[in-house]
Amino acid sequence: MPDIRIVLVGSKFEGNVGAVARSMANFNLSELYLVEPCMIGDDAYRRAKHGACILEKAVTADSIEEATRDCFLIAGTSGITTKGDRNYTRMPVPVREFAQNVSGYGEKIAIIFGREDLGLFQEELNRCDILINIPTGDDYPVLNLSHAATLVMYELFCTENVTRRPEPADRKEKDYMFGFFDDLTDAVGYPKHRREETSVMFRRMMGRSIPTKYEYNTIMGIFGDASKIIKNGKKWE
Amino acid sequence: MPDIRIVLVGSKFEGNVGAVARSMANFNLSELYLVEPCMIGDDAYRRAKHGACILEKAVTADSIEEATRDCFLIAGTSGITTKGDRNYTRMPVPVREFAQNVSGYGEKIAIIFGREDLGLFQEELNRCDILINIPTGDDYPVLNLSHAATLVMYELFCTENVTRRPEPADRKEKDYMFGFFDDLTDAVGYPKHRREETSVMFRRMMGRSIPTKYEYNTIMGIFGDASKIIKNGKKWE
Repeated sequence: MPDIRIVLVGSKFEGNVGAVARSMANFNLSELYLVEPCMIGDDAYRRAKHGACILEKAVTADSIEEATRDCFLIAGTSGITTKGDRNYTRMPVPVREFAQNVSGYGEKIAIIFGREDLGLFQEELNRCDILINIPTGDDYPVLNLSHAATLVMYELFCTENVTRRPEPADRKEKDYMFGFFDDLTDAVGYPKHRREETSVMFRRMMGRSIPTKYEYNTIMGIFGDASKIIKNGKKWE
Repeated sequence: MPDIRIVLVGSKFEGNVGAVARSMANFNLSELYLVEPCMIGDDAYRRAKHGACILEKAVTADSIEEATRDCFLIAGTSGITTKGDRNYTRMPVPVREFAQNVSGYGEKIAIIFGREDLGLFQEELNRCDILINIPTGDDYPVLNLSHAATLVMYELFCTENVTRRPEPADRKEKDYMFGFFDDLTDAVGYPKHRREETSVMFRRMMGRSIPTKYEYNTIMGIFGDASKIIKNGKKWE
């Protein structure tokens, strides 16, 4: 994951600052800078939970310049997307694209979040190398501060961390299971002319659910047992 | 966007409920159900902002069953990812994959979020057709309730809404600009043997930044003017 510093500018509610610290802990970030913040007290620490140590180590600065002096790339966040493309200082990239662009980036990156009410001022936006936008509905695009920060951190995290899933079943196991399913339709006396389409439907269903080996084997066992029991005329006891 | 109902089960902090309502407004959702919630008072409304009407219209229910009776697909959220694949009831799909899977889905979908401390109980998880997981770091995977809900809504929103960007420059405009850049390196007497690699580097930089027509034209103008001024021996006044 790139070397990320979160910079909150002029935060007005300590609860938001605490909530951002918590999300930083959730997404493996630790460097928090606060530019002219409100008082950070009990409410911030209560909201920070396991991010309390991040809050404790947060650096307070008097200006964005001071808070970003050793950063190579300064990314600002803006809820406002310019309709035209004239005002280049307000033309942001979607956060997912930003996360992909900075993947593997070696230098320190500062991501700046503005005030709860007024965001970042134009002169602050002008300091940024890039602006990030979080897609929202048009009717109410103003996100809560900690929600916005969380979404940006999540995208950065996801780009670097492809989710590991349990091992999916292989082709042979799948074919076994589909065979057992066909046995089952045979055993229950399912109408012959509808068997093929039903078999395909089941295949598609399983395809969408991407079952694991364990799930395949479990289902296969049930189908197999059911077929056997039906064909041998045994009853459930 | 699919027809989504957000169901909060046993929420303990009204601020979280309000924050969820706000995010729902951000991502064009409106149907909120509360199962055995805490008291919803001023703090919730203060946090809900433009989502206050969603909070006001929220339906209170006594059980998940009651809150999801008319839903076709019930998706539960779980912070715990099972390491093995035996416990199938706890094997979730990553939220991005879920959003892609339900894209274009016609039936109503309930997405259930559990308690701030204990999440959803096993018997509640067993009621769900699918479990959703939000990727986080391993050290502290427990997200704040409204953060978790926001991330799920964001992914659903993004899958349906490809971000519109200002019109990028076309090939001809780009070639013009690169020509002007070459003129400029020529004008400043840049070492001939390094011009080609520098020209490619500039092309790559522009490629990554995907400039708009306006940006290309602006830069082109500056390069062109600079080249002319240098070649004509004029000085800056």
